[in-house]
Amino acid sequence: MTEIEIGRGKRGRRAYSFDDIAVVPSRRTRDPEEVSVSWQIDAYHFDIPVMAAPMDSVVSPETATALGKLGALPVLDLEGLWTRYEDPTALLAEIAGLDPVLATPRMQEIYAEPIKPELITERLRQLREGGVTVAGALSPQRTQQHWKTVVDAGVDLFVIRGTTVSAEHVSGRAEPLNLKRFIYELDVPVIVGGAASYTAALHLMRTGAAGVLVGFGGGAAHTTRKALGIHAPMASAVADVAAARRDYLDESGGRYVHVIADGGVGTSGDIVKAVACGADAVMLGAALARATDAPGRGYHWGPEAHHSELPRGLRIELGTQASLEEILFGPGRQADGTTNLVGALRRAMATTGYSDVKEFQRVEVVVSPYLGQ
Amino acid sequence: MTEIEIGRGKRGRRAYSFDDIAVVPSRRTRDPEEVSVSWQIDAYHFDIPVMAAPMDSVVSPETATALGKLGALPVLDLEGLWTRYEDPTALLAEIAGLDPVLATPRMQEIYAEPIKPELITERLRQLREGGVTVAGALSPQRTQQHWKTVVDAGVDLFVIRGTTVSAEHVSGRAEPLNLKRFIYELDVPVIVGGAASYTAALHLMRTGAAGVLVGFGGGAAHTTRKALGIHAPMASAVADVAAARRDYLDESGGRYVHVIADGGVGTSGDIVKAVACGADAVMLGAALARATDAPGRGYHWGPEAHHSELPRGLRIELGTQASLEEILFGPGRQADGTTNLVGALRRAMATTGYSDVKEFQRVEVVVSPYLGQ
Amino acid sequence: MTEIEIGRGKRGRRAYSFDDIAVVPSRRTRDPEEVSVSWQIDAYHFDIPVMAAPMDSVVSPETATALGKLGALPVLDLEGLWTRYEDPTALLAEIAGLDPVLATPRMQEIYAEPIKPELITERLRQLREGGVTVAGALSPQRTQQHWKTVVDAGVDLFVIRGTTVSAEHVSGRAEPLNLKRFIYELDVPVIVGGAASYTAALHLMRTGAAGVLVGFGGGAAHTTRKALGIHAPMASAVADVAAARRDYLDESGGRYVHVIADGGVGTSGDIVKAVACGADAVMLGAALARATDAPGRGYHWGPEAHHSELPRGLRIELGTQASLEEILFGPGRQADGTTNLVGALRRAMATTGYSDVKEFQRVEVVVSPYLGQ
Amino acid sequence: MTEIEIGRGKRGRRAYSFDDIAVVPSRRTRDPEEVSVSWQIDAYHFDIPVMAAPMDSVVSPETATALGKLGALPVLDLEGLWTRYEDPTALLAEIAGLDPVLATPRMQEIYAEPIKPELITERLRQLREGGVTVAGALSPQRTQQHWKTVVDAGVDLFVIRGTTVSAEHVSGRAEPLNLKRFIYELDVPVIVGGAASYTAALHLMRTGAAGVLVGFGGGAAHTTRKALGIHAPMASAVADVAAARRDYLDESGGRYVHVIADGGVGTSGDIVKAVACGADAVMLGAALARATDAPGRGYHWGPEAHHSELPRGLRIELGTQASLEEILFGPGRQADGTTNLVGALRRAMATTGYSDVKEFQRVEVVVSPYLGQ
Repeated sequence: MTEIEIGRGKRGRRAYSFDDIAVVPSRRTRDPEEVSVSWQIDAYHFDIPVMAAPMDSVVSPETATALGKLGALPVLDLEGLWTRYEDPTALLAEIAGLDPVLATPRMQEIYAEPIKPELITERLRQLREGGVTVAGALSPQRTQQHWKTVVDAGVDLFVIRGTTVSAEHVSGRAEPLNLKRFIYELDVPVIVGGAASYTAALHLMRTGAAGVLVGFGGGAAHTTRKALGIHAPMASAVADVAAARRDYLDESGGRYVHVIADGGVGTSGDIVKAVACGADAVMLGAALARATDAPGRGYHWGPEAHHSELPRGLRIELGTQASLEEILFGPGRQADGTTNLVGALRRAMATTGYSDVKEFQRVEVVVSPYLGQ
Repeated sequence: MTEIEIGRGKRGRRAYSFDDIAVVPSRRTRDPEEVSVSWQIDAYHFDIPVMAAPMDSVVSPETATALGKLGALPVLDLEGLWTRYEDPTALLAEIAGLDPVLATPRMQEIYAEPIKPELITERLRQLREGGVTVAGALSPQRTQQHWKTVVDAGVDLFVIRGTTVSAEHVSGRAEPLNLKRFIYELDVPVIVGGAASYTAALHLMRTGAAGVLVGFGGGAAHTTRKALGIHAPMASAVADVAAARRDYLDESGGRYVHVIADGGVGTSGDIVKAVACGADAVMLGAALARATDAPGRGYHWGPEAHHSELPRGLRIELGTQASLEEILFGPGRQADGTTNLVGALRRAMATTGYSDVKEFQRVEVVVSPYLGQ
Repeated sequence: MTEIEIGRGKRGRRAYSFDDIAVVPSRRTRDPEEVSVSWQIDAYHFDIPVMAAPMDSVVSPETATALGKLGALPVLDLEGLWTRYEDPTALLAEIAGLDPVLATPRMQEIYAEPIKPELITERLRQLREGGVTVAGALSPQRTQQHWKTVVDAGVDLFVIRGTTVSAEHVSGRAEPLNLKRFIYELDVPVIVGGAASYTAALHLMRTGAAGVLVGFGGGAAHTTRKALGIHAPMASAVADVAAARRDYLDESGGRYVHVIADGGVGTSGDIVKAVACGADAVMLGAALARATDAPGRGYHWGPEAHHSELPRGLRIELGTQASLEEILFGPGRQADGTTNLVGALRRAMATTGYSDVKEFQRVEVVVSPYLGQ
Repeated sequence: MTEIEIGRGKRGRRAYSFDDIAVVPSRRTRDPEEVSVSWQIDAYHFDIPVMAAPMDSVVSPETATALGKLGALPVLDLEGLWTRYEDPTALLAEIAGLDPVLATPRMQEIYAEPIKPELITERLRQLREGGVTVAGALSPQRTQQHWKTVVDAGVDLFVIRGTTVSAEHVSGRAEPLNLKRFIYELDVPVIVGGAASYTAALHLMRTGAAGVLVGFGGGAAHTTRKALGIHAPMASAVADVAAARRDYLDESGGRYVHVIADGGVGTSGDIVKAVACGADAVMLGAALARATDAPGRGYHWGPEAHHSELPRGLRIELGTQASLEEILFGPGRQADGTTNLVGALRRAMATTGYSDVKEFQRVEVVVSPYLGQ
């Protein structure tokens, strides 16, 4: 690893975002139709390497069913509106209509309503009835409190997602979640993150996780950088965690932990680059929130948007663009990488001669910072 | 080659665009009048090292004649409007008048009309009657279907042009084009591309091509990067392919394959830099589409603009600026590198003391990223 | 240190600003509540590692009291309006209301009023009555003239602050301030700066200073660069001075000189990065001038703004945003790093698993230039 | 010299502009009043290291007198309006009033008027009468034709200035100017350029020149880069030529050739950086054309603006800002480096502890690209 001297007393690595890199074609080409983009994690098979982020603007019980049928893996936020309110439909409409100035305080109010265990049970039942792989997410802070409800209600995949999750959390207040024992005792595969470095990811892999989410703060990277000074450029983060996967594969004698890019994946080009850096799949938030049939109605927000003391993200107005199906499979209507995401991945793989996602992780990339339009 | 570590699991080269570099004068100077910018490929001699791109907004039978007389090598798109319609004049006017919102679907409709072999024959006849070197282009996908018509009609140079073309295309659906056998059996010199790397270009050279087009996706680089995550920074790509030319020259015992920069060549400065990086000639699209007498009437589009499922380029409004002759030979009216392209090349060569294009490939360059105005 | 060849006759180091770097989480996490951000310099303890800059738009006797109670260390400018006028309240209001075109000449006029020793005495008395640590600042040029008044009136910490301060000032006009002897003879701890390099800071440390301000020209970095060609990118400057602290600690057999980042610290993210590069505390100007209860009423200016011959800074309109308390401790209302500065620092430390400011100086950082939005 | 691989077939140096670098204070400080900024070339002494560019928007016989009295070295363009017209005052006013669209053709028309030898004689007489050092400039193309007139009329310093000037110009049309013999035979010291590299400058020094102008294309760098692909980043160019000066000093056994930065020197910060890279003086164009008493009346243009075939520069509207005296010596009214140029240089030298221009060439610089505002 090349370290740069920032000053005499400090060194740091040069890190790269997806915008800093690009894929280059360098060998054979292939028919897009002969490319496979399917993904399998544990016993579950998916036609496309896409998880839908556990955010109220992206996944509702209804869109979960739709996304599952389209081949993706939707994850319901078990700490969002759907487990706080019997029927949050009116609230979703209200949020979309809020004046920008008032959005943050009103959202803090709406999300102050307590989570109801019986609604967790009910929502997971709805997902199962929808006929798709059932996946729900909790934050590390609430996992101790609600995991039993979740497991009793039945999930296929359990997601623990925070801005940053470590294998070792230090707290004097409460017994922190012992991830290793928790995952060991749990009967369902766990996907956990964000992690943004080789070491953090390796430790998470050692807890027995089936997958690691790579990233920090999801789509709110810009504000996270301004507010916290923290930034995990995604190309470097994914490549680091992919190396941890490889090293852990050896160390564990063959356990393959999936690497899922979660953050900074806004366009089809970013999906291509995430895989090129070593991701097995991507977690999409804003890219899906742009759907006409997304619950956010053209708006997008994460848990940071209504954090009571330190709001770091905003309710962003994305507008609506196309149906979930068109966003994933086209036909493309815009040439900006926001529709036909899967078609674009397929074409990038075909153009560079690769036939499956795993193989495409080896594609050649160049560093060439993208300086605006 | 210096490789950069993007993260522990991935390395990539630093690659440079034309905007990242510049030519520096460092030795003698010379009179612009004593500089030769002529170019010869196979038996064909051209006064200027310029090919006109096979795009309906650039080359029609009429502008082909004009461009040929000005010393350039125009290439007619044999899959464009001129081989689909008896008289596409009204359609060209319609496209120029389309509302931006409706342009893509209407263009998809217009280009849905089948290609007619008899029109291929007719157009090539028109070119020959115009008294210029006859060059037509097919995509790799359609070459098998139409090449015989083309050859029977008679061409001087045959161009196979796609966003990326490899010597080895893998397809289970159809027998892919065996470029090597195809070129061997054909009686006319073939120019083929885009290729964006040393290896891809070397393989194309080994098929027997007379020239290799360097680039990926032509002028649509911005959207290609957003949509496909693919980008081939042109300064690096041309320099790589020029190295393949040198190595192939040795390997083949003396066969000189021409390197033609095709993409990212928007201003006279870019032409200068393309040659400085090793190009023998450049393929111009938008730069010529700006002509008052170009068929696009101030608009410009490539085959990507009407791809049925994944549109990656757009119909771009360029406006019109000057006649084809003024664009190539001045007098310059703007100081922005869009008129008197050949005069600028001549002056850059004179200022740095070089007397022909081949020699100018050795000019000194610096890396100095251009950050906006 | 890696030196870059600018040209054959000149070499220079690559230097980094806070925008060029970011902190990355890489190990355990921790509860924000269990993080300590306290700071101690000499005998004085502060709950937060924040000094308020000696500028009329930031510190008045009134806000000094408020800031002290919030745990910060406010420094009163002893050459500002409060020592020139009996009651500058009306003038502060006038400055805030000045037409931009007329602001500079009128401010030059207002600041032409002489400094009155009796007002120095009076202001320091007011600070002491406010019950906070008493700290006042003079420029190096005026220290000789006024220090006795200051010391007689009684201060806890004496600050000598200029755009750049060196241990050795050469002047033929007047006997320059011999910093070493001055500090030795003085009974109070001295904080001195700006210094922007290892050598300059080491020399200042050797004078006996208790703390060194790192920076050049404070917030006016942009105009300083344009006007003087001088720029001290802060990440590199802080890291350099932190190395001087470490080396001086060894050389002096254990004297720990505090490093205070003074300039370029505009957001909570910058505070995080300053500490990550080795700062013990930060000096805040504009960040606090944005307070509704700051004396600048939404405007901010430094001594450069009214320099009689070479104005390098401007009276900047910042607008008002939140109370001093909210700016420091939240609740955050904006997600842009301008409110809840201390909460953000706390969270960044917790997220990366560090428990105090000194330890957090070792956090991992990456170099990843921030290119606009 | 570090070379970068652009691609396998091409390497190039990384080159830096003034915007890429900055001066850093690192040792003692000094009183601005004790700094000397004087400059001596051959027998001529100047209070400030500033030449005024031979451009009609900057130097007229009248401003030459004024500038000379202010301590600068003004150079009259002997191919401009003043040697083409008996009284060009009305034409200068007309140019300032031209509609932007029509400016280029009308200026081409105005400058089509032939140069009159008797006016050269007359203008040089006027300069001499003004009591200042008499300096006039010709382009390399016209030097053969007019030098005798110039020398007979009497000049103190003879300037040969083109976009790029080489010691060896190749021409089949006419006997090119043999610079070495010309300078040897001439009785007056010659300043010649632009040169932008070590080699080019060294060759010019060997012709016997008293000074070398460093740069390419003056202020029109942006358009030169777009149109010709040529760019000589000034920090690197000046540092290279300064190294040639040092090497030539040794080779010649002690002849010191002055290095004058000519291009890219737009603000006082740029003057500081030019000297920091090794310049003995700077040639100012736009910086002086902004004067209320400059002949351009708020407009600025160079010979490129009316080149008959390849206009590369434009008539730029700069507006007017302050008198020549204020621009050079203040008081500063803007904080953007456009007024009090000499005061800023003085202050930068004082702040870093240097006492004369020659010594200041050794000041420490950092590389830190300036991105934005």
